Amino acid sequence: MGQNKKTAITPTRMEDYPEWYQQVVKASDMAENSPVRGCMVIKPWGYSLWERMVAVLDGMFKKTGVKNAYFPLFIPLSFLEKEAEHVDGFAKECAVVTHHRLEAGPGGGLVPAGPLTEPLIVRPTSETIIGDSFSRWVTSYRDLPLLINQWANVVRWEMRTRTFLRTSEFLWQEGHTAHATAEEALERTRIMLDIYADFVENWLAVPVIRGVKTPSERFPGAVETFCIEAMMQDRKALQAGTSHFLGQNFAKASDIRFQGSDGVESFAWTTSWGASTRMVGGLIMTHGDDDGVIMPPKVAPAHVVLLPVFPKNADPEAILAYTRETADLLRLENYGGRPLEVEIDSRDMPGRNWDWIKKGVPLRLEMGPRDMAEDAVFMFRRDTGERCAVKRADLAKVVTETLDAIQKNLYDRALAFQKTHTCNMDDKAVFYDFFTAKNPEKPEIHGGFAMAHWCGDGACEEAIKKDLSVTIRCIPLDAPKEEGGCIFCGEKSMGRVVFSKSY
Amino acid sequence: MGQNKKTAITPTRMEDYPEWYQQVVKASDMAENSPVRGCMVIKPWGYSLWERMVAVLDGMFKKTGVKNAYFPLFIPLSFLEKEAEHVDGFAKECAVVTHHRLEAGPGGGLVPAGPLTEPLIVRPTSETIIGDSFSRWVTSYRDLPLLINQWANVVRWEMRTRTFLRTSEFLWQEGHTAHATAEEALERTRIMLDIYADFVENWLAVPVIRGVKTPSERFPGAVETFCIEAMMQDRKALQAGTSHFLGQNFAKASDIRFQGSDGVESFAWTTSWGASTRMVGGLIMTHGDDDGVIMPPKVAPAHVVLLPVFPKNADPEAILAYTRETADLLRLENYGGRPLEVEIDSRDMPGRNWDWIKKGVPLRLEMGPRDMAEDAVFMFRRDTGERCAVKRADLAKVVTETLDAIQKNLYDRALAFQKTHTCNMDDKAVFYDFFTAKNPEKPEIHGGFAMAHWCGDGACEEAIKKDLSVTIRCIPLDAPKEEGGCIFCGEKSMGRVVFSKSY
Repeated sequence: MGQNKKTAITPTRMEDYPEWYQQVVKASDMAENSPVRGCMVIKPWGYSLWERMVAVLDGMFKKTGVKNAYFPLFIPLSFLEKEAEHVDGFAKECAVVTHHRLEAGPGGGLVPAGPLTEPLIVRPTSETIIGDSFSRWVTSYRDLPLLINQWANVVRWEMRTRTFLRTSEFLWQEGHTAHATAEEALERTRIMLDIYADFVENWLAVPVIRGVKTPSERFPGAVETFCIEAMMQDRKALQAGTSHFLGQNFAKASDIRFQGSDGVESFAWTTSWGASTRMVGGLIMTHGDDDGVIMPPKVAPAHVVLLPVFPKNADPEAILAYTRETADLLRLENYGGRPLEVEIDSRDMPGRNWDWIKKGVPLRLEMGPRDMAEDAVFMFRRDTGERCAVKRADLAKVVTETLDAIQKNLYDRALAFQKTHTCNMDDKAVFYDFFTAKNPEKPEIHGGFAMAHWCGDGACEEAIKKDLSVTIRCIPLDAPKEEGGCIFCGEKSMGRVVFSKSY
Repeated sequence: MGQNKKTAITPTRMEDYPEWYQQVVKASDMAENSPVRGCMVIKPWGYSLWERMVAVLDGMFKKTGVKNAYFPLFIPLSFLEKEAEHVDGFAKECAVVTHHRLEAGPGGGLVPAGPLTEPLIVRPTSETIIGDSFSRWVTSYRDLPLLINQWANVVRWEMRTRTFLRTSEFLWQEGHTAHATAEEALERTRIMLDIYADFVENWLAVPVIRGVKTPSERFPGAVETFCIEAMMQDRKALQAGTSHFLGQNFAKASDIRFQGSDGVESFAWTTSWGASTRMVGGLIMTHGDDDGVIMPPKVAPAHVVLLPVFPKNADPEAILAYTRETADLLRLENYGGRPLEVEIDSRDMPGRNWDWIKKGVPLRLEMGPRDMAEDAVFMFRRDTGERCAVKRADLAKVVTETLDAIQKNLYDRALAFQKTHTCNMDDKAVFYDFFTAKNPEKPEIHGGFAMAHWCGDGACEEAIKKDLSVTIRCIPLDAPKEEGGCIFCGEKSMGRVVFSKSY
């Protein structure tokens, strides 16, 4: 869009990226803050996107043999304590239920009553409570592998929250599997990582780097944490899904044992993997522009909105009939595994068009008497702003092809952005500059993913974090072996890792 | 099944209905108790049924314009207190979050820390927290009607729990709508009641009576509560869905106001309506027999299970290939709006057949070398025990037709049972006898739905409840006007109501 054009969102991304994000969430009507500290309300437009994400991911999981189940919201305190690293990681920020009743207090208002003998934690993640079930479900090698997923809400008492990205309550899925061998568990960990990457790249149109976390960034209690990392438009990283190889740590904590075909009893090998409403935030931050959200067509709550225009002296009923006819025609088509979702907005009021731009509907079709005369509609493309008249005879074909083009364009430009802002770096001063100095002449060289060598010492990682608020996002899985010197201490390293600021 | 036949479930329904229920839940592998008091674990077979129920109901809601959203798990105590009757109804049994951290205690273990300034209630229902959002979303008559639903977990701290029927945490949907007029809100209340009745009767094959609750049985804060009531095989009633007309009570409590087209500001009229995992319990108790669950085909997690048999000297690979071929053939068919769900169980072990009987799969197809020679399979029907050979050329047709027959049979026999045990009653002694005296000669006249006159006085209702643990389940919507005398006091009444024991 032209430089002088007024944008729908104030401030723009360049002016204030964090505030732009909050304004886009608001303007697109996807979510709002709730009066409950750190908890969001997901509004219909945002929830509809999440429903679509759930449906696609759920189908992908089930194709690999995963079955859904549901486990309690509450975890007894003693369960959380079973795994030492795990409790350290999650005890800091959790909602604690201590009472099961309210009573009239001395001041007249209600006060908590009925104290529980053991406090309950609102699940921040469910390894320990699901492990308890697994310990009953698994007795023989014939019960393995056990491949379970749950869609649920979880709570982590965050101090600083941001809609979708970091909220005290969020929606997610958490998969939990148990296996007879370490190899099989590791394979499952990788299968799920690949599903996340496939989903995020091919459905959300967000390119990612697959990698493994350093020990300091691992899930508390995991042996290895795999992740996918995406670059947002402020060049910070967003972790969009994680898959953990838990070794036998949680099997030992929860007593998940099985008798092998040889009669020997062993602890199972387990995994867990999760993705959350955070992906919604990642989608907005990857594709959004200064006019609002841009929905990737394959997960868009609506693909097309029809906007009848009513000039004076025109017959509104005829225009409405034409609009409904066009909607019916489009609804016969399929896109991304479901019928085209078509909205009609016949409100004749100013700002109508902008509402849909801000919401990010991929295509808008205007139609009035002049279009009717041509048996056509006027099509506007959200991602590029292109517009053209389309004959109704060609409409279904043009719409589905253009949706494909939008899906591809969103991915391609996000990938180009990521590549532009990913640089190999071998000089410590340049590295520090990359993350600190703002160069107004060349803003594009400020920040992003620095591919740099790391010796493997947590102390170097910690020092960089302290100096720059930059962490190792991951050790990429496809990184070539390459000898080099640690960006911090110069000691020998065998490959580059991804350094970045992050959400 | 024959009288002397050993049953899969001990005890039988006649011997001990409540214990039969618990054993069926266990034997069918649908759910288990969790170590968290009153909370259940829904296992894959049970959850898969729930997923199917969610998908169908959700589609029905959306067809009437309802949109899904998501609201916070936690409700500030002050919100709950906004509606006087509402807080009285729900403050007695709720999980109270009082802290947001755990710290090492003096004894070494973790103790709650970070006390909250205002306790949070884990939602027992969301009128007040959703009302808060509605107060922001509604400003003009143009914003109405607002039709919102959420699928969520809720918590009510129950003292006596039973899997699916009454658990501290359960899954449900709660719809919340706001309207410009009382008439429109009442109409919506009825639309949703009809959807519940349609779903429960035509999908779960459970016949229901639609009615309205007496004041004492209303949802706390509602002006009118509509419900559907089903009869279980122990002749007790189960409430399977409720739809509440809330008048302006919650709009006033939450300050949901709108400006009418005439410029005048008014409070909105609201409704709420819910159905829960309780329906799963109702399904089991309606259709189950002494061999386990019987799944109504339209919601069954699997329609058909294929059971290859491997006699000695037969080629197992050929039998397996034949089985897979049969599965592929069936999976091309649709039933109840989705492809036929076909399971293959090729475990060659005793009890395999019974596992599927207990789980309630509508049809079992056995196939071995002799069936292969005839290009046929041997089909077993779960509801009637009927069995016959079916040529594979006819299989798809026979399977879908038989599934229809099963769906119909389950409904018809449940309806016949309900009708048999529903009696008009005008004599107080007979009425008391109906609910107390066990007549071994005529057990069928003991208990059930007593259709009796009631004067409308809560004191009569209360006295009957005290004497018999029998309540008025509903005032049926389709009851004919009929003058009579109250079954308790003899005062004038204009129609019969449904008295019954209940879950």
